[in-house]
Amino acid sequence: MDVRVLVVGFGHVGRAFARLTALKGSLVERRFGVRVKIVGVVDSRGAALKPEGFSGAELLKVSEVPRSSVCFSEPYGVCGLSLKSLYDSVQPDVHVEVTPSNYVSGEPGLSNVMFALSRGANVVLANKAPLALKFDDIMGSARARGLKVKFRATVMGGSPLIDTVLSLRSHEVKKVYGIFNATTNYILTLMHESLIGLDEALKTAQAMGVAEADPSLDIDGWDAAAKLVILARLLGLKLNISGIARESLSKVTLRDVVEALKRNSVIKHVAGFDALSGEAWVKPETLSSDSVLSKVNGLLNAAVIETDVCDYILIGKGGGPVETAHSLLDDIVSITGGLI
Amino acid sequence: MDVRVLVVGFGHVGRAFARLTALKGSLVERRFGVRVKIVGVVDSRGAALKPEGFSGAELLKVSEVPRSSVCFSEPYGVCGLSLKSLYDSVQPDVHVEVTPSNYVSGEPGLSNVMFALSRGANVVLANKAPLALKFDDIMGSARARGLKVKFRATVMGGSPLIDTVLSLRSHEVKKVYGIFNATTNYILTLMHESLIGLDEALKTAQAMGVAEADPSLDIDGWDAAAKLVILARLLGLKLNISGIARESLSKVTLRDVVEALKRNSVIKHVAGFDALSGEAWVKPETLSSDSVLSKVNGLLNAAVIETDVCDYILIGKGGGPVETAHSLLDDIVSITGGLI
Repeated sequence: MDVRVLVVGFGHVGRAFARLTALKGSLVERRFGVRVKIVGVVDSRGAALKPEGFSGAELLKVSEVPRSSVCFSEPYGVCGLSLKSLYDSVQPDVHVEVTPSNYVSGEPGLSNVMFALSRGANVVLANKAPLALKFDDIMGSARARGLKVKFRATVMGGSPLIDTVLSLRSHEVKKVYGIFNATTNYILTLMHESLIGLDEALKTAQAMGVAEADPSLDIDGWDAAAKLVILARLLGLKLNISGIARESLSKVTLRDVVEALKRNSVIKHVAGFDALSGEAWVKPETLSSDSVLSKVNGLLNAAVIETDVCDYILIGKGGGPVETAHSLLDDIVSITGGLI
Repeated sequence: MDVRVLVVGFGHVGRAFARLTALKGSLVERRFGVRVKIVGVVDSRGAALKPEGFSGAELLKVSEVPRSSVCFSEPYGVCGLSLKSLYDSVQPDVHVEVTPSNYVSGEPGLSNVMFALSRGANVVLANKAPLALKFDDIMGSARARGLKVKFRATVMGGSPLIDTVLSLRSHEVKKVYGIFNATTNYILTLMHESLIGLDEALKTAQAMGVAEADPSLDIDGWDAAAKLVILARLLGLKLNISGIARESLSKVTLRDVVEALKRNSVIKHVAGFDALSGEAWVKPETLSSDSVLSKVNGLLNAAVIETDVCDYILIGKGGGPVETAHSLLDDIVSITGGLI
């Protein structure tokens, strides 16, 4: 079975996805009988299109053009086309939305996703903002058209948390909490291990490419809050990003860290919601070193899922382009009818 | 959509499943549009059958008859019928196999499962033995008939490990290891926390109903080994239970525990396999208290899944009748087309 895929957004994650499809396309075809054909990649200035699907070598090549320049790549580049013209030209089955997250307007992801659904394409997202802002609109539009929207990459990007939660079909989820932002966890780990302050840890994280030049989406908890909204909506809860009590990591000092260590504890930036009360929070918490979460360091994420039956913990990579690309590819296979 | 279910084996797990279906049947129907109808329950002497499906109250009632006596329960009991006659009478869509695990012959589970498939029923198992001994035969028979076999309850019984592993569609799993037996983990936790020897801890575990009168299947690693075989086969590896190096927990002394604690470590009974070399083992291992697995205590299980992309850890309940019953119900929903 052929699946025609349009990749919208072509930064680190979009490129990692193109390379991964080149690398593992044949593995996925052998396992699931699904041939993933990338028919177009789109950035802010234009696209590279090949209606019959790029070869592996072509995908590797197009992944190396400079930022916002795929439309200049020979011979498939086309500059300045509207999404509508792109759709007319390549007619994708699956739209992969990997533009940057914008929590104010949700754009350009939100319009892109709604357009994709209107044109009969299934949607796979790594961009969190459209779901964090308009989950019900997107799902409603998909449902009305019999289309699927998958978004494993949006929460614990490299780990199958969403699939794990959905597989608890007969459970009632009471509470979900954990470490959902790899940047702040990396910074906190540095503070505990090297006994340095937040500013110094942040600089190291920025030098390592783990933190953005403007780290506020991570440090102030917006990123984790968006993930909570997506998880909560997945479970049918009406949580909005504005309803989440956010405490920035920026108030945590080296002194706090030292005090915690003295008490055989560590500080983590924990995000969670209570499904019964509707309360949701992102805040620094002091955790005993006996707890599993206290051992989740560096770029790892962890989720605790408390249900009416028992509790589960999933630990894994929070993001990273290669890990996120695997989640996108897994979602595409699952849309087309995977093993589960 | 109605799903007609025959429950074969009516001990702790079979009864928990009947009660759970009574309790959560309407939740599952609301969420997935699937009405789970138990049309028969079978024990070693006979069955209680109701072709139109038992009501919730009837399920609670039949779950309270003494062991091996459902055939005497009025008005639906029938004694001494063959499985063939039972199938003729209630025509199930799904066969739930919850007879005890027998790692010598695999019986009665193995014959029951093969018969169910020959009659066009999908199969859900909590009994590990048929899969540990004849995985390929069972799957081959199912595949040839377009039927499904699900077995989440067989490994980390209360946790969705199998679904989580299957959801890693584009990963190559390199190694799986962890704590897969709740009884030995409970015993080891008692030894570390109360500084008692294995015999004393075992007696407590038996008194708590956590260990069997004959605990050898757990202590000597047979149970964990069977789980490894199922996980390995799921991933396409040709592992047999006889090919697993088993070291019994019985050689672990209180002195070993004290020595480990002195070195800021703990002893765990760890089971695992290496997908590349084919090696597989169940053995006591000394783990640093910095590791996540060292914090997995009591009746919890944990699995570490090492892949070519990154590593994942899932922690959750290993068994327990209620937890296992949820896994059975989740598998039935997934067979009939759940959300994932």
